[in-house]
Amino acid sequence: MEGEPTLRLRIFDLNCWAIRYLSKRRQERVRLIGDTLRQEGFDLVLLQEVWSEQDYSGLKVKLAGCYPFSHYFRSGVIGSGLCVFSRFPILDTLLYQYSLNGYPYMLQHGDWFCGKVPGSRAGVTAPLLSLSLQLHAEYCRDKDAYLPHRLVQAWELAQFIRHTSKAADVVLLGGDLNMHPEDVGIRLLRGWTGLRDAFAEATHFEGCKNGCTLVPDNCFTDKSELLPFPLGIRIDYILYKAISSFTVRCEELKTTTGRAPGMDIPFSDHEAVMVTLHIQRQGQPAGATLGTADPALADVVTEARTEVGAGLQAARRQRYSSGRMAVLALLLLLLQAAAALGTLAGLGAEQPFPKLSFCLLAFLALGVLVLATGLHLFHTMEVKMLHGTEDQMWMVLRALQERP
Amino acid sequence: MEGEPTLRLRIFDLNCWAIRYLSKRRQERVRLIGDTLRQEGFDLVLLQEVWSEQDYSGLKVKLAGCYPFSHYFRSGVIGSGLCVFSRFPILDTLLYQYSLNGYPYMLQHGDWFCGKVPGSRAGVTAPLLSLSLQLHAEYCRDKDAYLPHRLVQAWELAQFIRHTSKAADVVLLGGDLNMHPEDVGIRLLRGWTGLRDAFAEATHFEGCKNGCTLVPDNCFTDKSELLPFPLGIRIDYILYKAISSFTVRCEELKTTTGRAPGMDIPFSDHEAVMVTLHIQRQGQPAGATLGTADPALADVVTEARTEVGAGLQAARRQRYSSGRMAVLALLLLLLQAAAALGTLAGLGAEQPFPKLSFCLLAFLALGVLVLATGLHLFHTMEVKMLHGTEDQMWMVLRALQERP
Repeated sequence: MEGEPTLRLRIFDLNCWAIRYLSKRRQERVRLIGDTLRQEGFDLVLLQEVWSEQDYSGLKVKLAGCYPFSHYFRSGVIGSGLCVFSRFPILDTLLYQYSLNGYPYMLQHGDWFCGKVPGSRAGVTAPLLSLSLQLHAEYCRDKDAYLPHRLVQAWELAQFIRHTSKAADVVLLGGDLNMHPEDVGIRLLRGWTGLRDAFAEATHFEGCKNGCTLVPDNCFTDKSELLPFPLGIRIDYILYKAISSFTVRCEELKTTTGRAPGMDIPFSDHEAVMVTLHIQRQGQPAGATLGTADPALADVVTEARTEVGAGLQAARRQRYSSGRMAVLALLLLLLQAAAALGTLAGLGAEQPFPKLSFCLLAFLALGVLVLATGLHLFHTMEVKMLHGTEDQMWMVLRALQERP
Repeated sequence: MEGEPTLRLRIFDLNCWAIRYLSKRRQERVRLIGDTLRQEGFDLVLLQEVWSEQDYSGLKVKLAGCYPFSHYFRSGVIGSGLCVFSRFPILDTLLYQYSLNGYPYMLQHGDWFCGKVPGSRAGVTAPLLSLSLQLHAEYCRDKDAYLPHRLVQAWELAQFIRHTSKAADVVLLGGDLNMHPEDVGIRLLRGWTGLRDAFAEATHFEGCKNGCTLVPDNCFTDKSELLPFPLGIRIDYILYKAISSFTVRCEELKTTTGRAPGMDIPFSDHEAVMVTLHIQRQGQPAGATLGTADPALADVVTEARTEVGAGLQAARRQRYSSGRMAVLALLLLLLQAAAALGTLAGLGAEQPFPKLSFCLLAFLALGVLVLATGLHLFHTMEVKMLHGTEDQMWMVLRALQERP
């Protein structure tokens, strides 16, 4: 990048929805994605929800010619589902695990098992920090129990970007953020990092109305979820910013429109986002663009802190009730042990309970004890992490208020 | 720091061993630590194993006068035990959780519950990145089952430092690394980050022989653990390096010698480490000191990768055997269900088992199924993380070999 006046960078981002045995027409779609990527020859490809390492390996083999560098992020029980293909060398990768990521007992939502992580560096001679990521899904917008977790993730992601991006020239973030453009998490992430939204900045736009990436025209989307949003919603983003002596301009943003170009099926239940960026070296360093002195930032952080505080209250209540349940189960077990000992010692004239029911009750109490203790430990961790985030936000608010 | 020619920085580091109900004479020792810190007036204090938030709050109140800035890192079930007191403003903090930290079922070792984290920025006008941390303990040196986990932690710590330190002027790391100075983890951390060991660099030294921080003279240390090391061992470190246009020189390193100065009891079962650093601005930027082109570095990374590979083999074996156990338990349950259904349908002439044993066996099978499934999931995550680290190390090795 050093010698060239302008670098034109084409980026492809897609949530691939490639879950083995569950996603419809998975193999066909992965093949289609691979073919398109090979034909189009992007510079950087950020994919999410490639849950099977076999699918990744297949893509890697197919794309070896035009994207010689790639990385798959391993984490969690199932994996992170995140991978990156690049025309430029990937110099280094770093894994950052969010401290909160849903609840292990919400099996139907599954986020906990995936340990979602951002983090990859693709080098373009001068360093370019690129992140591929996915935040916790929103399963019910009206009563969103995961909002505090998603806010903690947005905050940790913002902190991660602030702390790791200082030596980069350009920061790029692409992924399924599971948040609408006006949501507090997006405003927090953008405000606290200074990242710009490619959709809002693009000189030329082509695709679904309002840049939506979850649209009713896509045959795989859940139509009932989109009932309140007849045009669809935008939850997949490409965000960027220049750090040191560079400027970035978004020339073009395109999305697919319910089906892959020239085909009868879409790539995924999400639409793909494709942008073209112009990166140019400036005469003088742009100075610190990290701390955006936006007066609205304090309001956003305050709003986020209030939500995290509400989550903290809920987590404390759950910790308390699971702890109480564990104590009750323990008491029942002790009572049974005392009764059994009493019977053995011949204190009671006859056995007070039939053996089977007595035994069943003991096992039930033991099961409840184990489960409730596990839940108590989990919610204790949740309380610590939410409390820690609240503290960090408070520290930032104080610094923002002290700044002129 | 900008205007001054030299900054003299005094740092105190101690593993406080302050576990409620378990550590001997805890309250007395925490009081003593607080008194000493107040008298001595260090610039930066890095404490580990302050497990009770009450102890932290007590110290915070006591030290508010001379250390107006402090931070306690919340994480895990119990907490991280890490805190920082500073004479200079703490600008920002970041939490990084290691992806592996022991086994949840090794209750007697407890590391898993603590989620150890480094990460704190103490600002000295120009940024100073300071980290307080503790790595996974070594419980048995000869047959060290935790070595791969500790190596993953050392690696992640090194990566974390490389990625976050670029905008800092000076990086400081203090803590209980649970590794001897010649161990592969320490060599990896130092080699890959370029951090220098204050003990090796100090112009003036005073304290236990060889800078040991776990010594037989300390009345709280476990004497049997120290039998093979009659002089003691050094596992608490202060490491540092200058990043941009600064130089750092270690003027002095002191350790306590089995008891607190002028008292009859020690601060902790570990000795405190105190250093005085001289930080000076250079005329020209020192250039990139991150990638140390040490030819021995490739050997260290190879050695570490071999150990991580051995850990990966072991984790795969454990994943396989726990998976097999879960399948066997499931088969037994299915068999029992079939037998019970058969009896209900009147297929058998009489009941083949006494009800109680039948019921007990079913519960046992269920218990084994739940436990084995949990273990299988845990070891699956372990395999993913070890495999990911092995991959990262390979990427680095390739880059090291390609470099001239």
